[in-house]
Amino acid sequence: MTAADYLRTVRDRDWERVDSGTLRLAMISLGWWTRERAIPAVGDSTFCETTVVVSGSREKATAVAAETPTVEAALTYEEFAAGEAVDEYDAVYVCTPNALHLPHAETAAERGKAILCEKPMEATRERAERLVDATEDVPLMVAYRMQTDPQVRRMRELLAGGAIGDPVAVHGSMSQQLLDVVSGDPDQWRLDPELAGYGATVADLGIYPINTARFVLDADPVSVTAQMHSADEAFRDVPDQHAAFTIRFDDGTYAACTASQHAAYAGHLRVIGTDGELLLDPVFLGETPQTLRLRVDGRTLDVDDGRRNILGDEMTEEFDYFADRVLRDAPIHPDGEHALVDMRALEAVYAAAETGDTVPVE
Amino acid sequence: MTAADYLRTVRDRDWERVDSGTLRLAMISLGWWTRERAIPAVGDSTFCETTVVVSGSREKATAVAAETPTVEAALTYEEFAAGEAVDEYDAVYVCTPNALHLPHAETAAERGKAILCEKPMEATRERAERLVDATEDVPLMVAYRMQTDPQVRRMRELLAGGAIGDPVAVHGSMSQQLLDVVSGDPDQWRLDPELAGYGATVADLGIYPINTARFVLDADPVSVTAQMHSADEAFRDVPDQHAAFTIRFDDGTYAACTASQHAAYAGHLRVIGTDGELLLDPVFLGETPQTLRLRVDGRTLDVDDGRRNILGDEMTEEFDYFADRVLRDAPIHPDGEHALVDMRALEAVYAAAETGDTVPVE
Repeated sequence: MTAADYLRTVRDRDWERVDSGTLRLAMISLGWWTRERAIPAVGDSTFCETTVVVSGSREKATAVAAETPTVEAALTYEEFAAGEAVDEYDAVYVCTPNALHLPHAETAAERGKAILCEKPMEATRERAERLVDATEDVPLMVAYRMQTDPQVRRMRELLAGGAIGDPVAVHGSMSQQLLDVVSGDPDQWRLDPELAGYGATVADLGIYPINTARFVLDADPVSVTAQMHSADEAFRDVPDQHAAFTIRFDDGTYAACTASQHAAYAGHLRVIGTDGELLLDPVFLGETPQTLRLRVDGRTLDVDDGRRNILGDEMTEEFDYFADRVLRDAPIHPDGEHALVDMRALEAVYAAAETGDTVPVE
Repeated sequence: MTAADYLRTVRDRDWERVDSGTLRLAMISLGWWTRERAIPAVGDSTFCETTVVVSGSREKATAVAAETPTVEAALTYEEFAAGEAVDEYDAVYVCTPNALHLPHAETAAERGKAILCEKPMEATRERAERLVDATEDVPLMVAYRMQTDPQVRRMRELLAGGAIGDPVAVHGSMSQQLLDVVSGDPDQWRLDPELAGYGATVADLGIYPINTARFVLDADPVSVTAQMHSADEAFRDVPDQHAAFTIRFDDGTYAACTASQHAAYAGHLRVIGTDGELLLDPVFLGETPQTLRLRVDGRTLDVDDGRRNILGDEMTEEFDYFADRVLRDAPIHPDGEHALVDMRALEAVYAAAETGDTVPVE
């Protein structure tokens, strides 16, 4: 293959099999992420359509419906739970605060609807296990958009093909200025342990390097160490405004990760192997360009995939993948069992920080 | 300042004050590092000269002397200890296995000679403390060549000037294929705890990100966590063929680090701040080019300092800095007290891995 041939394939969908079809989605919760990222991404998708919007606020649901021509019904949570407009959607996208994923997923499963559930899957490992049990009869995908990111998939292929030998160490980070992102809402749910679960940062941002490392290595965590603290008043109820943690994987690889809700909007993923290095930088930030760097024997190859500040770009890949799988009744890779491993890892990271011990992931 | 003005200053020595002079060095131990890196670097330096070579092997000392025109005397360790050729050198460069630094430093101090001692300062914290005590009447520098690397110094200046706001997290790694580096010598001292000290990898390679993070942040470690293991037979006597560790610094910054003696030759240092990121990649590898990247508000500035595979380049900076300080009788920054903090950090990292606890650095 020539370099030009390779470059042409960089954004190819290696998973797409469905020829045509439309998966009609109910968007559950209409926070800024759903309105500014998810709905536009569905609008750009090939196989999805937003036909129902669901919110705690009837006014918000009506307003979003008015802005979204494909929407057939605007529901409150109660109306959704009562089964209104149940024939207007095939699947749900659950983007509520973590601790509300379970009831909405239960409702969707009772109606036989496929579920795309945001990550982390729930607030705690126990609630996530209940969610998996409750949804065993319907397709469940957990929304690890990194796993359908074309450059992340290319990184995984390069690793599997031995491009840098055997992996030895991973570095990953994810950070943002949470209070800027949610400005005007200092009491937002990520700072409320009742809604967020174990904490504000590792569960919300640290899960990006954790899950993406698992995905590109094709390995699972076996033990963790962690340090974390909160410094600013807004983070007084959560232990992890800032965090650093290590993970040992079952193939012997280590990951060294950081996450912060009070740092520049940034993310990277580096894998050091016996023969070279792979680096995605930036990564995890859906709307920025990203470069994949391969370095072997002192030679460096940079692949810029051409993505340019397209809002929701990563989300479009994710929604189309979900639709492809549901429309074909095909297995979904980032499923509930896969996501439970991250819930165990999160539980272990927070326990490690609290106890000061190295904690097994089990 | 224009960008062109900035670029012109990137490799400037911000420390050089001496106008002229020559510091005559005795090179203690003639392993590959001294022969292939240190002596050539001194040859390229402005203010240093190799005038004495000292080895356990008279043949090796004689052979190196024959290849090095400035050398006045070739000594065995016994002859050095006995004070032979004591008027032929002003200072010593101690590059023996870690556990032999102390006796040579004691000898040098007794003769009133300045000391440039390789890192880690000794095999254990206790022996390092004895070394500092024994050398209190002579200049002592610990050979953190990263601290005189021009790009590392520019990174420190940028951080101190607030280029990325307040630092929040650091990522650092250092790795090599030890058995390739020392091919033909599987019993080399880094794999012998009696000579190496706590271990083979964090003490030898992990010390690069530890110390460089301290230097660029101007902060010291307060607690650590660690995971490490050895997989290959050659590493059976040391705990850390591969390692990952976290450090909390006294300014609240976290570092997430990895080190491996069985991975590609690679090193990087990333600092994530409240307003942006700084990345040196590669770094710590003296003979490779390195790029300093500054990313703020989605804009990226890359500075390639023009270094091109010049053997010993970083070492030349280090030797000239040492000479500048000794010839002027000026304070040396990476001194024994500074290096003791790293010995405490190393002791803590190995204790953290062994006990599974978060360990204070004290």
